[in-house]
Amino acid sequence: MPFGYNGKILRVDLSKREVSVEAQDEVFYRRFMGGRCLALYYLLREMRPGVNPLGPENKLIFSTSVVTGAPAPGLARFNVSAKSPLTIGTYGESQAGGFWGPELKFAGYDAIIVEGRAEKPVYLWIQDENIEIRDAAHLWGKDIAEAEDAIRRDHGDRLIRVAQIGVAGENLVRYASILNECKHANGRSGMGAVMGSKELRAVAVRGHKRVELKDREGVSRIARVFADSFMENPSNKGLNIFGTSELIDTLNEWGQLPTRNFQTGFIEGAHNISGGAMRETILLRGEGCFACPVRCKRVVKAEKPYVVDPRYGGPEYETCAALGSDCGITGLEAVAKGNELCNRYGLDTISAGAAIAFAMECYENGILTREDAGGIDLRFGNEDAMVSMVEAIARREGLGDMLAEGVMRAAEKIGKGAERFALHAKGQEVPMHDPRGKVGLGMQYALSFAGGDHIQAEHDVDFDFTAPEVYLEQAKVLGILERLDRLDFSLKKVRMIYYLQHHFSFLDTLCGCVFGFAPVRAMTMAQLVDLVSAVTGWETGLWELMKLGERGTNMARAFNVREGLTRVDDRIPQRFFEAVTGGPLKGASLSRKEFERALKAYYRMAGWNPETGIPTEEKLYELDIGWVAEELRRHGKLPRGDD
Amino acid sequence: MPFGYNGKILRVDLSKREVSVEAQDEVFYRRFMGGRCLALYYLLREMRPGVNPLGPENKLIFSTSVVTGAPAPGLARFNVSAKSPLTIGTYGESQAGGFWGPELKFAGYDAIIVEGRAEKPVYLWIQDENIEIRDAAHLWGKDIAEAEDAIRRDHGDRLIRVAQIGVAGENLVRYASILNECKHANGRSGMGAVMGSKELRAVAVRGHKRVELKDREGVSRIARVFADSFMENPSNKGLNIFGTSELIDTLNEWGQLPTRNFQTGFIEGAHNISGGAMRETILLRGEGCFACPVRCKRVVKAEKPYVVDPRYGGPEYETCAALGSDCGITGLEAVAKGNELCNRYGLDTISAGAAIAFAMECYENGILTREDAGGIDLRFGNEDAMVSMVEAIARREGLGDMLAEGVMRAAEKIGKGAERFALHAKGQEVPMHDPRGKVGLGMQYALSFAGGDHIQAEHDVDFDFTAPEVYLEQAKVLGILERLDRLDFSLKKVRMIYYLQHHFSFLDTLCGCVFGFAPVRAMTMAQLVDLVSAVTGWETGLWELMKLGERGTNMARAFNVREGLTRVDDRIPQRFFEAVTGGPLKGASLSRKEFERALKAYYRMAGWNPETGIPTEEKLYELDIGWVAEELRRHGKLPRGDD
Repeated sequence: MPFGYNGKILRVDLSKREVSVEAQDEVFYRRFMGGRCLALYYLLREMRPGVNPLGPENKLIFSTSVVTGAPAPGLARFNVSAKSPLTIGTYGESQAGGFWGPELKFAGYDAIIVEGRAEKPVYLWIQDENIEIRDAAHLWGKDIAEAEDAIRRDHGDRLIRVAQIGVAGENLVRYASILNECKHANGRSGMGAVMGSKELRAVAVRGHKRVELKDREGVSRIARVFADSFMENPSNKGLNIFGTSELIDTLNEWGQLPTRNFQTGFIEGAHNISGGAMRETILLRGEGCFACPVRCKRVVKAEKPYVVDPRYGGPEYETCAALGSDCGITGLEAVAKGNELCNRYGLDTISAGAAIAFAMECYENGILTREDAGGIDLRFGNEDAMVSMVEAIARREGLGDMLAEGVMRAAEKIGKGAERFALHAKGQEVPMHDPRGKVGLGMQYALSFAGGDHIQAEHDVDFDFTAPEVYLEQAKVLGILERLDRLDFSLKKVRMIYYLQHHFSFLDTLCGCVFGFAPVRAMTMAQLVDLVSAVTGWETGLWELMKLGERGTNMARAFNVREGLTRVDDRIPQRFFEAVTGGPLKGASLSRKEFERALKAYYRMAGWNPETGIPTEEKLYELDIGWVAEELRRHGKLPRGDD
Repeated sequence: MPFGYNGKILRVDLSKREVSVEAQDEVFYRRFMGGRCLALYYLLREMRPGVNPLGPENKLIFSTSVVTGAPAPGLARFNVSAKSPLTIGTYGESQAGGFWGPELKFAGYDAIIVEGRAEKPVYLWIQDENIEIRDAAHLWGKDIAEAEDAIRRDHGDRLIRVAQIGVAGENLVRYASILNECKHANGRSGMGAVMGSKELRAVAVRGHKRVELKDREGVSRIARVFADSFMENPSNKGLNIFGTSELIDTLNEWGQLPTRNFQTGFIEGAHNISGGAMRETILLRGEGCFACPVRCKRVVKAEKPYVVDPRYGGPEYETCAALGSDCGITGLEAVAKGNELCNRYGLDTISAGAAIAFAMECYENGILTREDAGGIDLRFGNEDAMVSMVEAIARREGLGDMLAEGVMRAAEKIGKGAERFALHAKGQEVPMHDPRGKVGLGMQYALSFAGGDHIQAEHDVDFDFTAPEVYLEQAKVLGILERLDRLDFSLKKVRMIYYLQHHFSFLDTLCGCVFGFAPVRAMTMAQLVDLVSAVTGWETGLWELMKLGERGTNMARAFNVREGLTRVDDRIPQRFFEAVTGGPLKGASLSRKEFERALKAYYRMAGWNPETGIPTEEKLYELDIGWVAEELRRHGKLPRGDD
């Protein structure tokens, strides 16, 4: 009997302090598989629209997938979903690597649905069949590492895996993250704030089962092939040696490294915050996730000018850019310190950096004063200011309290035209990629269910005329047969993004790592399909997986539609339609006309009504989720009857 | 370098008596692969709409695919395409098995584009690099077997493979077929008439090259697995033992065996014309196509009441029903004789049988008289009448001349309400499956590019509640996870047909045999994907192949749109909306309202304009054939500009 059939879903009602275990049949697991689709199944079925994301009615769902925890690279991640408190009421989601996801599977569960709100701080303790809602008074207010140690001490077991919020989550910072192992973050869309609103400090897991593999030898074989060959792939090799911040030098050279709140894309001294420089200075070691040989994560240690604790890992590319160049900063220790604090307190580094960059631009334009900033000289490039602001945001002190709301809400509060510096989509701060240098990314920002997000699809720049041949070769199986310029905005580009989006969406449903499975990486699509088949025993294929991805995209869209979003919410900051002010990309801007035309074409291509942006009934039935169409109809979002 | 890259396309201009060889690059082969897509590429690029299908401007394209001729089961078929002379001006296409397709590959060619018209009868002689347009005076008017023998004698080589028309093609019978080995027919949509209009009697091929295989051992391994296991699959086992006419008993039992021009679906004595009865009486042996162990083809021999020559093979299910039950006949030797004559003269057995059944119903209703029929008592069940009419049609004698035009044109000529007995879609006679017993088939008939055609998709009945578990298991990889009643006409059924159609369409582009590769057969989808990869060296997958299939469907649709067809042409005979008059299915009829709703849903699901049935620009770009949108726009079939 296939593995998925034996899956269990844990339901925890914190208000009633009740725990139950539910089962779903194999068709359910094959149709939804895990991650995004599994979470959205419950959110669409069980939650009504309009709930307060920080109220007890919101549901916080931890989900793995049918392949999570299998001993092969890229299957270590888990997903956290809820209605986002950061955005304009969208579906929120974030994934993290590490060891927590596999551990949940070892305990025998595919997912946890957390409902209600505890009366006082608690944490959830899961040890195989033993599930307890435990008091967390001794953890509240503590740094992440302290709390992790305390939980492990509580149970006398150092192998317990803890996913938890820090003080930022306790303080309902709208972009609070969830950390596991003190360094793997579910960063985006404020899942930590939802967790905080439920007074749930941590979910601690210890499991003793093995993940069932239908073809254990098949899984091992693929894992061995990957381990033996990944260094031959330029992307995986770079990740292994330099980590994700390898990207800094290239993007700066191209003029696409977000600098001073995206005013420009080039900064002198960028190399200081690159993976190469890190390797030569503060890097202790690389680290990896469960069963992965790539070890792309960084662990850094510094003494001056900032003391940086290696317990909290090291900065990724996004962090180096958000707390670095985007704040006008090129001091690696400062960036590493900012990163350490974000992890110590449970803050998303992207949104935190973006919020600080926003504040700096407001400051330099006289919209925020030194007094507003509590005496801090909030100019671009001020490392101490950045580090102080991270602390202030986590603790909601002074200006930090306002920035803890995210740039959209902060700009509203500040007024004075501050919104032109608030770079967000659907309320979420845009990450560290500039669509003026790769236009497909602009579509991603506009179309992403939770706004500013850079991993909704492989970036189109990876298949342009500068990309290595191996990338294009691996994209062919997705139907991408020819290169396309990074600035091309034709229907061909719309198609490319549409297809690539399915792919990343099914990875998010399988909780697969894009660093293992994207077309530009060492693992081929055939290997991925074989891996899913070997674990589940299902004869699957890329059609089924791509449609799984599209299903996830449409379920998320339906969530947003039900919440009242329309196509006018698919927009990106005005800044991207204005010229880059300096660097190699100086003068580049997106064409609004081309952008709008591409979006409209996307809706039609996606089977969405081009006037409303709402998925058609036929598309939802095509994706085998006709009940979602009925749900939208019930809420007046789809026309009745034949038309 | 992948195999497809070395492909060659032969172009033969019969008017100018010129022969040339062309090449296409690897991206072309990967995007179009062969068969349907390759043919439509040239028809859409090079032919203007409105040409006379029987004039020199029509192009007749013989195409194989990148996998044809590889030594594995199901890869023996080839495709013939042109504008159809039988239909209302649609794209026409027909595929045949046997040995001719592989032989063309052994000679080094993927396709032949035949243009113009010869001044007098010719045949094409292809021996590797040697290509000749030769005189065919000695073949003209001859039976198929005589002509085949003559060509082999011409060149002193008994291994020459000959695809040829017979006297029916010479006489431009609108449903004339093309035969190879005297028994494998490109039967449907009148490709033999197009060949006849070009005065091209035959294409004779002898090749001495090997098909390049990137992974010869991989191909062998899959072929071995198939050979070792296909008898475990109920469908393949039945095909091996009984041939396709195994189906007769089941359909009759279900009340779905077309009888007396589809008036009913049950006939006493049906078992006489079944595969089981054939095996016990006139069967000499089973035969197969190149490299296939299933050997589903029948070879029969009889002495009385009809002498049947085994050289012309034996009747398939379609033939047993068309010349048998649909004409009210259950005499196996009569059916076998009718089949032999159809093959001897080059007539499509389905359209021939349907035309005779039409005439019989006209006769029984007094619309055709005994005088009209040249003294023949044309009542249902008259075996001699059926056999005589096959002769008369091929020779265009008497009433046969009118029936040689197909039922649509014959009914127009007859008048007197005869059109209510003319069971065709888009001008092509419907084959031997009744949509009142499996509603998805009605959609196929309506949507098929060339009208009445039963192999546009696996029949929905194969996934209903009576189907073996193994069928459903293999359909899961296409996204079909649950059974659906054969009479279900919901959006779920529309989706099922839509998906199954992609699958059959890519088989028609790969020139793959549906008896090898459909989800109800022994070959799994994973094996099929592996086979394509092993032959071509491309890491392909089901996404790419399913999109290939959808591309073919849309290219054919675009051909028809360019010819002026609209959604009102997507219709099926009124008879299917009326009650079956007897048998187990008595009283059953299609609901016109449900049918229209399903069609409209299909258009939306397919990315076609629901008002016009025309593919949207976005769908065509999505399928990587944006140039087809531009072509439609050039002909005023797509709106200009942004909308």
